[in-house]
Amino acid sequence: MTRMNLALPDPKLDLVLERIVDVPRELVWAAWTTPQHLKKWFTPLPWTTVDCEIDLRPGGIFRTVMRSPEGEEFPNLGCYLDVVTNERLVWTNALAPGYRPAAQPSSCVPFFFTAVISLEAHARGTKYTGLVMHSDEQHTQQHAAMGFHDGWGTTLDQLVALAKTM
Amino acid sequence: MTRMNLALPDPKLDLVLERIVDVPRELVWAAWTTPQHLKKWFTPLPWTTVDCEIDLRPGGIFRTVMRSPEGEEFPNLGCYLDVVTNERLVWTNALAPGYRPAAQPSSCVPFFFTAVISLEAHARGTKYTGLVMHSDEQHTQQHAAMGFHDGWGTTLDQLVALAKTM
Repeated sequence: MTRMNLALPDPKLDLVLERIVDVPRELVWAAWTTPQHLKKWFTPLPWTTVDCEIDLRPGGIFRTVMRSPEGEEFPNLGCYLDVVTNERLVWTNALAPGYRPAAQPSSCVPFFFTAVISLEAHARGTKYTGLVMHSDEQHTQQHAAMGFHDGWGTTLDQLVALAKTM
Repeated sequence: MTRMNLALPDPKLDLVLERIVDVPRELVWAAWTTPQHLKKWFTPLPWTTVDCEIDLRPGGIFRTVMRSPEGEEFPNLGCYLDVVTNERLVWTNALAPGYRPAAQPSSCVPFFFTAVISLEAHARGTKYTGLVMHSDEQHTQQHAAMGFHDGWGTTLDQLVALAKTM
């Protein structure tokens, strides 16, 4: 199998969080791909992730359940598309596990998206890039207005804090 | 990368065409993955396929343009998900190339689907299985009513006839 083909980010359709974090990328990878770790950082407190299922291969399930401070639960179902250990993790909520088209978007994010987490070794730890692709500008703007950068930034802070205890 | 995870067919959500064809699977594979071949068999005559673009890797483009007998053209855009030479080809119209969520379904098929072509060597040639997965029963029934079995059967006849000349 040849390598996947990823287009360059499109500034009108994509949201990007890029940051150098001072932890090794192997720990960032473990935090993203192990349910017991992911549940500890994946949602900005006081929201929590109370369940997580990961089948780490293309077509495999990526399922989370988020809980609001009021105790309401929001399930999210997606499918991995590309898995390169310590380098790149791609998944989408547009497909359910086994690549079946999703009937509807996740409950937390009311539109389809594909996320690409890229990790590169860096002198100070890891160059971390989170790219989220949307189908049209309206969804991109909606996601930005929902607080994409604050949300992904906060959870990355939580991930790094966790990684330092691992 | 570990192998993809494909669920068993769901009789309420999937349509399946399974047949033994008397040509080697290498030729069936070539017919599916080479634009110049695909254009000759992909649509039931008198419809034709007048353009085809293939980037045969996960995330790569699969684009066709069909032309009706009246001369109207219908573009279709999709993305490969899994490519195992001579064995399995998976693509979807729910994602555009590079795994970006599609804004809308193809013009010929007004809903999202994922197709899996599986080829197995067989004493009489090739065991050919075309599986099409849908998000819900309504789309499955709609696709069946559009003539899935006749359409895929006819185009497979066309593919086999072409393969015998290759």
